[in-house]
Formats: sequence, C-alpha cells, structure tokens
Amino acid sequence: MKAQIITIGDEILIGQIIDTNSAWIATQLQNNNISVIQILSISDKEEAIFNALSNSQDQADVVLITGGLGPTKDDITKQTAAKYFDTFLQRDEEVLQHVTQFFEARGKEMLEINRQQADVLKGCTILFNQYGTAPGMLIKKGATTYIFMPGVPFEMKHLMNTQVLPILCKQDNTTYLAQENIIVGGIGESYLAEKIADLESELPAHIKLAYLPTLAFVRLRLSGTGSHKDDITKETKEFASKLIDRLADHVIANHDTSIEKFLIQKFIRHQLTLTTAESCTGGSLAAMITAVPGCSAMYVGGTVPYSNKLKQQLLDVKEETLSQYGAVSEQTVIEMAQGAKHKFDTNYAVATSGIAGPTGGTPEKPVGTVWIAIAGEKETIARKFQFQNDRTINIERTRQLALFMLWQLLVKEHQIGIDL
Amino acid sequence: MKAQIITIGDEILIGQIIDTNSAWIATQLQNNNISVIQILSISDKEEAIFNALSNSQDQADVVLITGGLGPTKDDITKQTAAKYFDTFLQRDEEVLQHVTQFFEARGKEMLEINRQQADVLKGCTILFNQYGTAPGMLIKKGATTYIFMPGVPFEMKHLMNTQVLPILCKQDNTTYLAQENIIVGGIGESYLAEKIADLESELPAHIKLAYLPTLAFVRLRLSGTGSHKDDITKETKEFASKLIDRLADHVIANHDTSIEKFLIQKFIRHQLTLTTAESCTGGSLAAMITAVPGCSAMYVGGTVPYSNKLKQQLLDVKEETLSQYGAVSEQTVIEMAQGAKHKFDTNYAVATSGIAGPTGGTPEKPVGTVWIAIAGEKETIARKFQFQNDRTINIERTRQLALFMLWQLLVKEHQIGIDL
Repeated sequence: MKAQIITIGDEILIGQIIDTNSAWIATQLQNNNISVIQILSISDKEEAIFNALSNSQDQADVVLITGGLGPTKDDITKQTAAKYFDTFLQRDEEVLQHVTQFFEARGKEMLEINRQQADVLKGCTILFNQYGTAPGMLIKKGATTYIFMPGVPFEMKHLMNTQVLPILCKQDNTTYLAQENIIVGGIGESYLAEKIADLESELPAHIKLAYLPTLAFVRLRLSGTGSHKDDITKETKEFASKLIDRLADHVIANHDTSIEKFLIQKFIRHQLTLTTAESCTGGSLAAMITAVPGCSAMYVGGTVPYSNKLKQQLLDVKEETLSQYGAVSEQTVIEMAQGAKHKFDTNYAVATSGIAGPTGGTPEKPVGTVWIAIAGEKETIARKFQFQNDRTINIERTRQLALFMLWQLLVKEHQIGIDL
Repeated sequence: MKAQIITIGDEILIGQIIDTNSAWIATQLQNNNISVIQILSISDKEEAIFNALSNSQDQADVVLITGGLGPTKDDITKQTAAKYFDTFLQRDEEVLQHVTQFFEARGKEMLEINRQQADVLKGCTILFNQYGTAPGMLIKKGATTYIFMPGVPFEMKHLMNTQVLPILCKQDNTTYLAQENIIVGGIGESYLAEKIADLESELPAHIKLAYLPTLAFVRLRLSGTGSHKDDITKETKEFASKLIDRLADHVIANHDTSIEKFLIQKFIRHQLTLTTAESCTGGSLAAMITAVPGCSAMYVGGTVPYSNKLKQQLLDVKEETLSQYGAVSEQTVIEMAQGAKHKFDTNYAVATSGIAGPTGGTPEKPVGTVWIAIAGEKETIARKFQFQNDRTINIERTRQLALFMLWQLLVKEHQIGIDL
C-alpha cells in the first residue's frame, strides 16, 4: 500500500514550526508496512489544498491530511474538501453532542464557530475525536482513500492509533517489510561503502541498503520486502550478518539505537559508573547522557571546568602541567580524566579539551585542535583530533568521538557485545 | 518571489529523521521576503525525483533541493537531474582539487567515488562547498531556477548563507523588507496578544506581526514591506517602539538575539562572571552557554552534580539538607547555587534540581517538579515549577526559565537595558 501525507498550514511554510507530525505518521505507517511515497506541506489557501488533493488522487492508495480543521477563519480544509469531493457539509448530531459536552465540562461558553466543528463531509466515515472538538473524516474518490485529521499532535496521534491504523491494516496484508539496522563507528561513509561493495552488489532488488551518516557514526539500514514474512525476515537478517562479519571491529550495535543509549545500557548491565570532565564540549556530552531516562543508574555527574582555575580546583590538574603544556594538551586531558575518575570514584571518566573556535587558535594549536581522554579500569587512552573552524560542528564531533572512544575502551576491557 | 523546497531521502519518508532543513530554509526565505508555496519530501528514487523537478517547473520562481548528493550508490540526485535538464555530468577541476585537498588535509586515501563528487551538471553555476565534498549547483529551466544543495545541515546552511541567499536577494529587489524583533519573557502568548490587541489591529496591511513562541519566551517579529527603504524602515520601527512601551517589564531585547547571547554580552559588558550547578538540566544549560563564542570571558565553568554525593562533594550541600528536604527542594537548590557561587568565586550562580521524568516522582513531588535558584550579588532567588511528564520538554523549559530568572535578577541588581 502506498501513502501520501499532506500537512496544511502556513506556520510550516514560514518555518515557524517544524513538521514533526509527518515524521510520526511516517514511522507508524512504516511500522505497519505501508510505504510513504511523499510528504507535502502546503499553505492553508483554497487553491493549494484543492490542487494537493487532486494531484494525489490515484497516485497513492491512501492520503493522510492533517491541519486546517480548527474553528477560526483561516481553517478552510473542510470547505475546500467539500468542493473537491463534490459534496457538502452537514452537521452531525453525535459530534455536536460531544462538542457541547466538551465545552460544558470546561465551563466555557460555546460559540457558533464551535458548533461548526460538528459539520462533516456528507458521505464520509466520521473518525470520532475523544480528545478535541474537530472530528477526523474518511472519504474515498477513485481508488484513493482520503483521511482528514486535526493538526494538534496528541489528537492526531490518538486518532491514528485508535482508528486510522486499524482501518488501514485491515485493507493491506499482501507485502511484508523486514528491517535490520547496524550502527558503525570509526570509519567514513565512503570507506565503508568500498569495504562492503561486493556484498552491496549481491543484494537482490527487494532488499535495499541505506547509509545514514552522522559526524562520527554511520547507520546502515537494510529494508527487505516480500510476500512471506518468515522468508523475507530470514533473508534480510542473513545479509545483516554478512555485513556485521565484514565490518567486524567497526560494528557497535546490531539494532536501531543511539550510541549514548547503547553505552548507558551496557554500563548498567555491567554495573559500571561514569563521570565526564568537559572543557571544549562545555556540558554537551553530559546533556547527551542525561537526556536518556534512567542514566542516573550509571552516571554520577560531571564537571565543566572551562577555566584553568576550575581544571585545578575540580580535577586536581597540576599547575605545572597547565603552564608547561597548556590546557589543550595530551598531558592536561589525561590529568582531567584521571582526576575525575579518582575524585568521583567511578569506573570510567571522559575528558575533553580543545579550541572549538572560531577564535583562540595559535600556529602550534590551530582552531579545531581537540584532545579527548578516557580513563578506564586498566588504562587511560588519549587521542588528538584536528577539526576545522566551525564551533558547533567541532563540539558535536568531539562529543560523538568521545563516546566512540569510550565504547572502544569498554569493548577492550569488558568484551561487551553488539546485541542487547 | 515564490519558492518551493524539495527534500530527497527515504530516511524522512520512513520517519527516521525529522526534516529540520526545510524549516530552517523556510525561515531564511521568509526573512528575505521570499514566500514558500510548498515543502515536499520524496524518496531517492529516479522517478520520484524526476517527477518532483518536473512538477515544480513554472510553479515556482526558485526550487531549493537538498539531499542525495553523497558519494554512495543510493544518492542519485545528480544523475536524475542530468536527465531532467537534458545535460550530462562533467568533472570540474576546481572542485576536484578541493575534494583532493579535503582528503589530504585529513590524511585519508581518496577513492574513485570521492572523485565523482567533483562531477557537476554541465551548464550549471557551481556553488562551492567549503565544508564538504559535495558542491551545490544552480541551473535554470524555463522560468524556474533550481538550486541543489547537500542534505548535511551545516553544509547546507553554509551554502545558503554565503551563496544562495545573496543570489536570490539580488534577483528580487523591487520591494524592500524591514524587520524588527522584540524578545519578550515571563508572559504567555495569549496574554501577550490580549495586551497588544489594539496596537495589532492598528497595523496597516503592509506590516505583519508574527508571534514566535519558545517554551519560556516569545519573539515578536514585525515585517514591513514597501517600495521605499527609508519609509518602511521608519514606519516598522515606530510600531516596534509602541509595542516595547506597552510591554515594558517583559521586554528583554529589542533585536533578534537569543537569551543566552544577550545575557553573555551583558555579563561581559558589566565584567561579571557566572557558574552553573545543574542536576535536572544535566549540563544542557552549560552547553547552551558554551555554544556561544566568547563565553569564556564570563563563564568560568560549572558542575553537573547528578548524584547526591556529588552535590555534597562539589557544592558543599549539607547532608542534613538532602536527608531532611530531599534533592528536589528549595533548601537544596539554594545551597547548590550559593555553594557554587562561593566555591568558584563568581558574581552569579544558577542551580537546577528537579524530577525530569518519565519516572522518579512521588505523591508529594510528582514528575515535572523543578526548583531553580539564582545566587546573585545581593540576594538569592528560588522558584518552584510544576511541569508535565515529558523529559525533553522539562529539561528545555527548565534551562530557558533559569536564564529568564538570571535576567530578572541581573536587571534588578544592575539595571541593564534592552539594547546593545
């Protein structure tokens, strides 16, 4: 089954909000083996809505439309849809009763524009909206099913989960989708491609390989489609195994995850603890870790010793080390990592020190010079990187590489596996 | 001028990533008085790319396309574009030299697929990409200008800022755009709207007011368009002054900035220093500050005392305070702020402690309970907030409100102004 998603509303076209609804809908459809062929955001103007409905007919089996169902004047989706489907709006008594109760429960006066929320396309199937006043609607034209939903995320999600997905899944059970994800680190996209070129060219047409790179990692995604669930699952898994064997030391995980989530789970499973000592990453590594629920089981906390004074005060970095080698040096970053591990009594400590830019460089240490150290249970490793002149990217690259180095040392000292 | 944005890549259609590029591009175009008529995300299949290019011709003056320019096999934008524009790909020597240097500077071996990055559409204008190996390209067909850019956000942003926007702005100089921005804090969007309703209804049709809310601030943007630069600039400024007078105490800045940049500049100008002590925000407040170049002139560094042990060890929070009132309490957060200010000898200190969720709440302190304290030169202020159950939003709201409280105390103690 092929789907299109249409989002209606000027706020997306002027960049005021990011369209997260479409990504959420796409994930749900994908999980239910419905492929999304395009996502379109348009203005809430009649012509734009009419053309979008018209262009999608017979291109997709189902078109999911969100937005423009509110009570105010700028919401004209229903009126335009009535024209396109050559029908009219009529008030639905059951919806009206729901809207009335909605206002009564909140002790608010109901206006005529609120009553109009109960006007639906004549001939549609009403998708009852428990969480708001605008009902969803399903209507067919030609071979295409159109589904209208409100743009408010939690109302849309509720309608999708309770009504839309069950309807769509009933209609389509002919093809099955199998996916395998592999997270790879320490190797660039093009080297990776060369290393697996022969395996990639062996892939049959019904299994696709996608490269999804970030600054320090690449996610490889295999997507296989077939009519027999067991067969396509097995075949896709087999290719994933071949890739994993070939890439050996670079493979971090054999499933869809983030490096920080993966490390946190491994730390917890092995009952290990971590602290961070961040100069150039300025707290962003700590923020990445603490964004994951449950991290307090392994992360005791950390420091952001931005000034030299705090490097000494918080981590016992020696004054001679700073004056002799400078803050951005192998010696300093090692003392930071070891000082943090020792003072906060953890199994591992990560330290970063660098010149993030855009200024602050010298001929010997140009902007983009970064040192990362990991103090582990048996040894401390340190590496120097030379990045370019973009502060944001340098910080992001450093925190990703710090996690990559932490993973490397953890593998060495604890033989952690790729699965969980 | 009318623009369309096309994003190429399956990762958006399966919901694996959210299309933030389009929102960013849309904002930039909007700021330069170019209206976006639609945003389209499509698969990296030849048919989808060809159809999208074809459908946009003569619908828009300019089409901005991102993605699918990488070196691997799944990136077929260039080949498809060559077909659509009835041309071929040819290797550009200058780009090849840049790609070669790019690899040499990193001490990496260059492969044939990397050399292919230098293949561009014959007849295009090359948009040189300093930050990566895939160049941008500009090519015309009919009345429409097509601009291809890599999908990697920082490369795309760099090309947009340095090349694409200057080219587009040169093409369209019949109308002039004047913009005024006002940053407002401590008041919700709807109360704000009510407070300025009469001024808003006085606005002439050629001056538009937009509300751009974040979790703790609202940016008001006035956009005036006219054929005379001086007239429209003056008229827009006059309305901005009226809004500033009306909103008085809520106005933080009279220009487009971020709260952290604004505070950093004020701290530097007044020769003040800052430290942070973050439990529930987990380093994200420090990361927000250290993302701004030059912050080291006022930010000495900070701590992320996630565990109770580190709250005591790093900030001298008393054991009795923690056992009697708990980590999430007025007493603890005040001791954290005062301890940090005292130990690291700064003028101001910000402390956060809360239950970010999704678990860890109790009947007395449900998930979303957050305490923020600011220790200033004369006094310490502390406030409790009760948020909901979303970890990401709770962390983001807390760091924004912490900066808002810091601004409030700074205004009180130093009478700082709104301009810079």
